[in-house]
Amino acid sequence: MNDAKTDLGKKILKIKKAKGLKWGDLANRIGMSPTWTCALCMGQMSAEPHHAEGLADILGLDGEEAATLCEIPYRGAQVMPPTDPLIYRFYELVLVYGTSWKEMIQEEFGDGIMSAIDYDMTLERQPDQKGDRVKITMSGKFLSYKRY
Amino acid sequence: MNDAKTDLGKKILKIKKAKGLKWGDLANRIGMSPTWTCALCMGQMSAEPHHAEGLADILGLDGEEAATLCEIPYRGAQVMPPTDPLIYRFYELVLVYGTSWKEMIQEEFGDGIMSAIDYDMTLERQPDQKGDRVKITMSGKFLSYKRY
Amino acid sequence: MNDAKTDLGKKILKIKKAKGLKWGDLANRIGMSPTWTCALCMGQMSAEPHHAEGLADILGLDGEEAATLCEIPYRGAQVMPPTDPLIYRFYELVLVYGTSWKEMIQEEFGDGIMSAIDYDMTLERQPDQKGDRVKITMSGKFLSYKRY
Amino acid sequence: MNDAKTDLGKKILKIKKAKGLKWGDLANRIGMSPTWTCALCMGQMSAEPHHAEGLADILGLDGEEAATLCEIPYRGAQVMPPTDPLIYRFYELVLVYGTSWKEMIQEEFGDGIMSAIDYDMTLERQPDQKGDRVKITMSGKFLSYKRY
Amino acid sequence: MNDAKTDLGKKILKIKKAKGLKWGDLANRIGMSPTWTCALCMGQMSAEPHHAEGLADILGLDGEEAATLCEIPYRGAQVMPPTDPLIYRFYELVLVYGTSWKEMIQEEFGDGIMSAIDYDMTLERQPDQKGDRVKITMSGKFLSYKRY
Amino acid sequence: MNDAKTDLGKKILKIKKAKGLKWGDLANRIGMSPTWTCALCMGQMSAEPHHAEGLADILGLDGEEAATLCEIPYRGAQVMPPTDPLIYRFYELVLVYGTSWKEMIQEEFGDGIMSAIDYDMTLERQPDQKGDRVKITMSGKFLSYKRY
Amino acid sequence: MNDAKTDLGKKILKIKKAKGLKWGDLANRIGMSPTWTCALCMGQMSAEPHHAEGLADILGLDGEEAATLCEIPYRGAQVMPPTDPLIYRFYELVLVYGTSWKEMIQEEFGDGIMSAIDYDMTLERQPDQKGDRVKITMSGKFLSYKRY
Amino acid sequence: MNDAKTDLGKKILKIKKAKGLKWGDLANRIGMSPTWTCALCMGQMSAEPHHAEGLADILGLDGEEAATLCEIPYRGAQVMPPTDPLIYRFYELVLVYGTSWKEMIQEEFGDGIMSAIDYDMTLERQPDQKGDRVKITMSGKFLSYKRY
Amino acid sequence: MNDAKTDLGKKILKIKKAKGLKWGDLANRIGMSPTWTCALCMGQMSAEPHHAEGLADILGLDGEEAATLCEIPYRGAQVMPPTDPLIYRFYELVLVYGTSWKEMIQEEFGDGIMSAIDYDMTLERQPDQKGDRVKITMSGKFLSYKRY
Amino acid sequence: MNDAKTDLGKKILKIKKAKGLKWGDLANRIGMSPTWTCALCMGQMSAEPHHAEGLADILGLDGEEAATLCEIPYRGAQVMPPTDPLIYRFYELVLVYGTSWKEMIQEEFGDGIMSAIDYDMTLERQPDQKGDRVKITMSGKFLSYKRY
Repeated sequence: MNDAKTDLGKKILKIKKAKGLKWGDLANRIGMSPTWTCALCMGQMSAEPHHAEGLADILGLDGEEAATLCEIPYRGAQVMPPTDPLIYRFYELVLVYGTSWKEMIQEEFGDGIMSAIDYDMTLERQPDQKGDRVKITMSGKFLSYKRY
Repeated sequence: MNDAKTDLGKKILKIKKAKGLKWGDLANRIGMSPTWTCALCMGQMSAEPHHAEGLADILGLDGEEAATLCEIPYRGAQVMPPTDPLIYRFYELVLVYGTSWKEMIQEEFGDGIMSAIDYDMTLERQPDQKGDRVKITMSGKFLSYKRY
Repeated sequence: MNDAKTDLGKKILKIKKAKGLKWGDLANRIGMSPTWTCALCMGQMSAEPHHAEGLADILGLDGEEAATLCEIPYRGAQVMPPTDPLIYRFYELVLVYGTSWKEMIQEEFGDGIMSAIDYDMTLERQPDQKGDRVKITMSGKFLSYKRY
Repeated sequence: MNDAKTDLGKKILKIKKAKGLKWGDLANRIGMSPTWTCALCMGQMSAEPHHAEGLADILGLDGEEAATLCEIPYRGAQVMPPTDPLIYRFYELVLVYGTSWKEMIQEEFGDGIMSAIDYDMTLERQPDQKGDRVKITMSGKFLSYKRY
Repeated sequence: MNDAKTDLGKKILKIKKAKGLKWGDLANRIGMSPTWTCALCMGQMSAEPHHAEGLADILGLDGEEAATLCEIPYRGAQVMPPTDPLIYRFYELVLVYGTSWKEMIQEEFGDGIMSAIDYDMTLERQPDQKGDRVKITMSGKFLSYKRY
Repeated sequence: MNDAKTDLGKKILKIKKAKGLKWGDLANRIGMSPTWTCALCMGQMSAEPHHAEGLADILGLDGEEAATLCEIPYRGAQVMPPTDPLIYRFYELVLVYGTSWKEMIQEEFGDGIMSAIDYDMTLERQPDQKGDRVKITMSGKFLSYKRY
Repeated sequence: MNDAKTDLGKKILKIKKAKGLKWGDLANRIGMSPTWTCALCMGQMSAEPHHAEGLADILGLDGEEAATLCEIPYRGAQVMPPTDPLIYRFYELVLVYGTSWKEMIQEEFGDGIMSAIDYDMTLERQPDQKGDRVKITMSGKFLSYKRY
Repeated sequence: MNDAKTDLGKKILKIKKAKGLKWGDLANRIGMSPTWTCALCMGQMSAEPHHAEGLADILGLDGEEAATLCEIPYRGAQVMPPTDPLIYRFYELVLVYGTSWKEMIQEEFGDGIMSAIDYDMTLERQPDQKGDRVKITMSGKFLSYKRY
Repeated sequence: MNDAKTDLGKKILKIKKAKGLKWGDLANRIGMSPTWTCALCMGQMSAEPHHAEGLADILGLDGEEAATLCEIPYRGAQVMPPTDPLIYRFYELVLVYGTSWKEMIQEEFGDGIMSAIDYDMTLERQPDQKGDRVKITMSGKFLSYKRY
Repeated sequence: MNDAKTDLGKKILKIKKAKGLKWGDLANRIGMSPTWTCALCMGQMSAEPHHAEGLADILGLDGEEAATLCEIPYRGAQVMPPTDPLIYRFYELVLVYGTSWKEMIQEEFGDGIMSAIDYDMTLERQPDQKGDRVKITMSGKFLSYKRY
């Protein structure tokens, strides 16, 4: 049911490349973060009208395409396990660190989870003499398991 | 082949609880980070002898158990997809953000991946009026796809 | 890692039957709902010490068993798809009503989810001339997808 | 074999949005509940002719589309496990509460199941100071396992 | 959770063979059908106390084993797809006749299902010159899909 | 490779509905049983020319469509496990009764199977005060496992 | 449920090796083919009492073990897809030749199958200058798909 | 990537039927065996130019189609496990006889496999009073596992 | 998302064949290795503009196709487990040699991995009297698991 | 069926570590390569008696353990997809390079495969200023697909 959002994502990637735009440029235009803006364009988030208008303006999208950005997606187009090495590495982190996340979060917060809905994330370049690094900062609200 | 490391992990969780120790206490004792120390105890990392000795000391492990900490594990005990809600949320992040990670990392670095081997991570409590948050900071070396 | 909680669950089912207790009896003893109490005994929830003490008292559990009730489980022991017909029917509801839940919740609340963590549930008999019915009432906090 | 019903569902979602209609409006028009009406439009239920006529009237569907609403679907279009977080949470409930449903229903009713066929459901907003909640009420006839 | 019922099933098969009993003999003893009696012994049904007593008597089971017969099983021990050729043929019937069952039942009864809970079955030898045949007669209550 | 047979099946369902025909009407026209005739139309059986001609006559099919009815299908279009509740119930019977069929058939016939090839089946309405029932009678030749 | 037959198979392999026996020796002792005798010992066939006695005699098995040989197995212990290269090659033949078998058998015999129950097989060494070959001859009764 | 070969296979089946040709006719025309010729037409083998020319001649294929016959396929279009009963029976043979093939080949030849590449096969009708049989003769070169 | 790269790969295979070019010819044209050049054409690598121009020149590709060669792919189009025998053999090597690679690399280098990103490979013919051999030389940078 | 070989492998790893032996030491002792020797000890190869004696001698194994080394394994203990990052990288190579291997080998040799049976391999350290590399050299006999 996300075909329109997926197709639009491919189109945006082409326009973005042709115009020499960065995710940061798109994000600045609408006053949001680059990560969320990228996820929106990849069809995994829903925009508010003014975000959609801003992106339509900078990318040259028409009204129907702007409306598509506002639709709430059926999320999760990523095939599992991921076959692409870049994406697989994150899957591998779940394999290797899954139990550590559980034990560490529970030690600090008690029984509950880190929300993946009330959640934000940044991605940046971390300069390093031995080779620059990718730095990802995740922040999710802790939710306590309700006892009732 | 990780039975010994898995069994040791369960034992360490019990000792840790009985002694009222935190991952931070264990980590301080051996001069390493809490995250890596936790992953080591959960059977997903290999210690150097002095780490193992430090942990054996604070936890009251015997020599064979210390040696088990030094063994290199067959990593990845986490069942997939994770059935535990806390761990599943990270899996869900891969489903939702997989393509965004790919597009953002490639925009910044070109064709390559974020290493999950030359990798480190911290986890901390992020105070917030609307409810405290879990903050995870990942840092992995960028590796360029070789052209040859 | 839930072996202790699963084994305890089987033992509680036997004691409960031998003593002629109902989930409601256990729940009343600790001032919680029957549903949560049952889920706790089935190894899917974590008790606070006073809950564990109450249950230990009424069921005749020892201190280690009471402590087991307080442990946070690796949740999700149910095999998928469920082979048991009673449990399968709930899986079938997801197959049949999944998209309806999505469209209805989003119409009412916007982009987000019903929490399965800040969540409670009751189950009761609904008398009916054509055959009594099972009535299940679920209540989960709505969580908005964060835009950032 | 549900292609026609699935395509019609997508079309109805668009019309509904364009006309500013709610599931409740559609339901009132045909004297049925919003939940069932939504499931019908999503291609998971079969209408009687007068329901189809009522929906055709309010939505502006043609005769073939009305007939499509009356067709009995091959149910179950939802992919499993669900990749969409909203729908996944219901799947997670089966993982976490499956055994509890079994033990509680059997305690109350004996050996049998809650029907997913002679079944109805409501979904409503439950106002709450700490954040509104989604309230879902399920009612399914209890069916005894026949002994013969 | 069915280990006790499964183990008992294996024991019953041995006793039955050693005593030269048939499913019909066991069924007659308790006034039930051979099919249900067999399914009960294979751990897939729950007995009432007088059934369990009758079987305990003829098979020489002790009180705990009789109680095990009364327990409600977590049904569905059969691995899927079945690897045993005899059982696989029934799985093959679902593959080949699934859509025909659907179209024929719906033509006759409308939208609904044949119950597998309010269900009984017989199995008998059908003499035939070209080789005797297995005759299986299934009877399940028709359940209408509720419109609400 | 069954696309032609599958497409024809959909077309036949439409014609059958438009002409108000029953499976029994089609079956009578060609002197075969309704079950086999339905399975043939659903693309799971191969007709002899005179069957195809009879069906072409009553349904108004052209010569190529009649020839398609005579083609031997690659059988088994049903997805497994079935997502449709009506079809799933038969799959559930395999889960619940698989071992019972094995033990009962072997007790009566020895080591072998019930053929799903030299096989026939009827489906009929069984009137019942507590609600009519679906009655399915299966007959398959017993085949002895060869010892050589 | 085949544990006894599987365990016996491992024991027979050891005895056979220790005594320097060949499958042909075992087969000659009981007047059956080496292939069937091997499959019997591997736990996939059921013996008649005189076969079991003959094998018990030559292998030094006790009465219970002889009885185990007579039991009808739950067939199909082979994991799929096979991980062992020798067994995988047969799986590969199904992948590569599946459609050819179908087209060739149907051309010659019409709509039906080659029975895997009324079936026998031989395996022999085929001397060849370029390297000896494994020759396997399969023979299965053709079964016509019943039209009814 | 085999679309062209698969499409050509369907076309050849139609031409073959329309012209009343047998696999043996096609095979004789090019001096190859019927089995290999069938597998070639079904898109699982690669022809040499003179084979392709011979088949193009007898079947009336054009030059591009003849070239398609010469292309090396990505083998293995058969879905696993096979849903078609005829093909499934061969899969079942792997389930039942896999370990026997392993033990028998190793007894005769030592550690190694039967090649599925340096492999040929015939299929013929075996007249039998109790019903004709399908006879398949496989011959594959034995390959020793290299010790190095 | 690789459709363009996959389609281009098929086109290149045709052009390459029609022009009688070898991977070595393409590689020489752009000063890269045949292996990488082949992987690039098969849609699994990203070219720099001058590589794309060289290949466009020798193969007669247009500007959009050259741009497609420069796009970074979503890698991993190979279905798993591979159905093609040539590719499956490499999968089989992982099955058979996986643990040996782990033990040997760790003995030599300690805890870490062989990179599949900073990686190159050659493939050549190794003449041999008993039949020529395929020789593949892989070289991947060793990456130490970070301790932090 | 490889339990004995797997258990022996674990024991050998311990002895090897305790005695400070390298795979090269074991290999030299029996005049074989380190790779094959390692694979043998990991339970994936079968030894000739003199290899087993040599290893028993250097490792201090008893006669039964030496015999276990000579047994032919059911190969392929590696779980797929591999969860261990070191082993996964080889699986990833199949995902990324599978089609390239196919196209390159076929260009050079025609239709056939690289044998994984008549196969040998070396693994060595490749010194490199930017970080040492793992060098693996594979050599497998090319086998032509038989045309018959």
